[in-house]
Amino acid sequence: MSRLKVKDIFQENIVDVEATVKGWIRSVRNSKKFSFIVLNDGSAQQSIQIIVDEVLPNYAEVAALLSGSAVAITGRLVKGGGKVQSIEMQASLVEIIGKVDETYPLQKKATSLEFLREQAHLRIRTNTFGAIMRVRHHLAMATHEFFSKKGFFYLNSPIVSGVDAEGAGEMFTISTLANDITKAPKTKDGKLDFSKDYFGKETFLAVTGQLEGECYAMGLGSIYTFGPTFRSENSNTTRHLSEFWMIEPEVAFADLDEIAGLATDYIKYLISYSLLHAAAELEFLFAREDSTAPKDHLEVLKHVRDSKFIRITYTEAIEILSKIDPAVKKFEYPTIWGHELQTEHERFLAEEHFKMPVIVTDYPKEFKAFYMKLNDDGKTVKAMDILVPGIGEIIGGSQREDNLERLEKRMDEMNMNKDPLWWYLDLRRFGSVPHAGFGLGFERALMYITGVNNIRDVIPFPRTPKNCDF
Amino acid sequence: MSRLKVKDIFQENIVDVEATVKGWIRSVRNSKKFSFIVLNDGSAQQSIQIIVDEVLPNYAEVAALLSGSAVAITGRLVKGGGKVQSIEMQASLVEIIGKVDETYPLQKKATSLEFLREQAHLRIRTNTFGAIMRVRHHLAMATHEFFSKKGFFYLNSPIVSGVDAEGAGEMFTISTLANDITKAPKTKDGKLDFSKDYFGKETFLAVTGQLEGECYAMGLGSIYTFGPTFRSENSNTTRHLSEFWMIEPEVAFADLDEIAGLATDYIKYLISYSLLHAAAELEFLFAREDSTAPKDHLEVLKHVRDSKFIRITYTEAIEILSKIDPAVKKFEYPTIWGHELQTEHERFLAEEHFKMPVIVTDYPKEFKAFYMKLNDDGKTVKAMDILVPGIGEIIGGSQREDNLERLEKRMDEMNMNKDPLWWYLDLRRFGSVPHAGFGLGFERALMYITGVNNIRDVIPFPRTPKNCDF
Repeated sequence: MSRLKVKDIFQENIVDVEATVKGWIRSVRNSKKFSFIVLNDGSAQQSIQIIVDEVLPNYAEVAALLSGSAVAITGRLVKGGGKVQSIEMQASLVEIIGKVDETYPLQKKATSLEFLREQAHLRIRTNTFGAIMRVRHHLAMATHEFFSKKGFFYLNSPIVSGVDAEGAGEMFTISTLANDITKAPKTKDGKLDFSKDYFGKETFLAVTGQLEGECYAMGLGSIYTFGPTFRSENSNTTRHLSEFWMIEPEVAFADLDEIAGLATDYIKYLISYSLLHAAAELEFLFAREDSTAPKDHLEVLKHVRDSKFIRITYTEAIEILSKIDPAVKKFEYPTIWGHELQTEHERFLAEEHFKMPVIVTDYPKEFKAFYMKLNDDGKTVKAMDILVPGIGEIIGGSQREDNLERLEKRMDEMNMNKDPLWWYLDLRRFGSVPHAGFGLGFERALMYITGVNNIRDVIPFPRTPKNCDF
Repeated sequence: MSRLKVKDIFQENIVDVEATVKGWIRSVRNSKKFSFIVLNDGSAQQSIQIIVDEVLPNYAEVAALLSGSAVAITGRLVKGGGKVQSIEMQASLVEIIGKVDETYPLQKKATSLEFLREQAHLRIRTNTFGAIMRVRHHLAMATHEFFSKKGFFYLNSPIVSGVDAEGAGEMFTISTLANDITKAPKTKDGKLDFSKDYFGKETFLAVTGQLEGECYAMGLGSIYTFGPTFRSENSNTTRHLSEFWMIEPEVAFADLDEIAGLATDYIKYLISYSLLHAAAELEFLFAREDSTAPKDHLEVLKHVRDSKFIRITYTEAIEILSKIDPAVKKFEYPTIWGHELQTEHERFLAEEHFKMPVIVTDYPKEFKAFYMKLNDDGKTVKAMDILVPGIGEIIGGSQREDNLERLEKRMDEMNMNKDPLWWYLDLRRFGSVPHAGFGLGFERALMYITGVNNIRDVIPFPRTPKNCDF
């Protein structure tokens, strides 16, 4: 008997045929003469109900199965009695493949997201994590489709980096000497002798693929990365991971304006794609009893998809914020030109003032990285952040300084060591062109769209300070 | 004037319109009254020829430009004089954006692949690396399309791993203590005190995503990973990288036979897709003066795409090899049952004996990982390797041991510490099902299809022992 996936049964409306389904039991309900099994095989949010008649030889054993057990069931697919288009199976054969006993951690009553974080190897078996991770899949596919259609090339930027990318964040050291330092070669001052390490120098986990992305944009025109990046800050918040995935497009001949447009289109594409391909998953997530998504989240997403994003400069943002009546909204941090926008400011702008994603551009150079292009005012740089309701910053980007002299001057001002970045400076030495790019935190986009409010719940195996199980 | 990409000009056959192209000069040839510029913008293998008339005000400066300079050229697109469907531009305006001088490393005569490896930040500006990296892009897109169409979900398995995945290869340690061990907390015996490290334990760069992939296959049914993996072996060969990308599908309810079929279909899909989407790139690579692809490589690829893969057991492979007349082929290593197949054996089978990819299955358990399912003979496991001409092993896979007792017994036999893998064992404890998967080395697939014979040339920034520049 050929095996059918539950997704295909419902999508292709397959009835009045004999088939086999294989999956895991979500629930068993026994009535007088029948047992009703709800089976999920992971292919879709939807499960299928299977009616097992007591005449089956192993009925007693089947009726005693616990949720979580794996079975293969053969039977006839028929129109269900209930809702329109519902399909059920009348079982003729139930093969028990893998049982669970009472020690199975995923019991009905113990499925809070907090508890499930400790069961990261099993939580994908719940409806909630099935939904989140299928949305994650679709957002990844949307990403490749969006950039590929536009003629961008996918770049695998390196994970092991020899560059201490100044200012981008604290880094993890990678070494083959660290495992047992008593046997490792050391320098005169007692440190590890990285010149004798595997790569012949100290190496780090990459915090960004941007610099290498710029190299490749200078050849392929438009590229994007989509890979893991790392931060070793001791940030134990609901919005930070030590290991997270980032998408970083880089476009030759583009300016800040063009890249802001690209970022807008990309976010809208992610929303459209997920509404189209993961409608059942989003519906399930928004309707969950302990859902943290706003009540009107589906409408909000559609509105964002169909609306123009707000675009203001940092200076305009400060003007808006400084005029807010403290009786309406009291900020903890100052709203004066030259001070950084804090999360409270970002969220106020996106959530309360505009109620829309906001693109803030042209920040004071002091807040931003060395490679951002200086504006003619000499004070601000061609940078942008995109702020969304519920999250705050989701995208950061900029036009890059493509003038060698200005870039070197800025690096000197910031007391940076230019030597390790000789190759990055070469891009400005040979055939330099204006170019721009941005970075989107994939998990933050996923939080935004699913309404899930802890970043640990949108990545399969979260890595955070003191936490690297599984 | 709207900018057009060179790819679109040729693909949509755009002529008799005014447009702007932006890119880098591949060559300038000056005749009496004209300068002929060949411009590439990275969007396609193809460049466009632009005719610059001496009447242009900055003609002298344009005619003196060196290859590698960046320009924006506006003019009229017209049918070219030469080949069918060729299109040229008659320039009316040449804007010089970024020059190069004589110090530019990519001079005509200095473009050996060896030399270009030292210019990894610039080599993407050559036709050869443009071709390779566009093929790489298309193989990545083919991968997502292949698995996504089949209902597989993309899984981002973790890169930072707390598990010393026994037997899979040597690992890099990740630490925030290693940067300055003089200040780091240490244990009584003078080693780094990893309990005080960032993650509270010693952590490593993942050598595989398989174990986490198995967790997710038990929920989503079918998954695949596509991400970076790491080996710290001191292997300085043309086929090894310290950082490489791997694709690892894992399928619940699948056996070895099914996964071998999936792997076959996948390799064929990669070939079909690249022949369709990167025909110009492959043609260019096969025709290069120093191409290492076999002369009939295009025909070979088509043959492989259209043919059934050979499938033999390890035992049959040994029988074949042991019967080979030493006058025909003399092997260095023994061809006796119980000895590992060496690269010389693998390549002989694929290249000389079958002249086709060969799937070898059912290896002696001693050669293989702890998690592979034991056959009824008690001696061999449900493993497979796929061997291809020119490379050797390109895929390794297996059906996994889904029986808890047998798996624990095997781990005990191999003196493995079961404690850190409690979660992996849980998969066999709760709702266990037969399942199988494989791993494809992405760069090896790329080498196979492009015929490029050094793995350092098919990844943007290669990481190998003592080599982590850029």
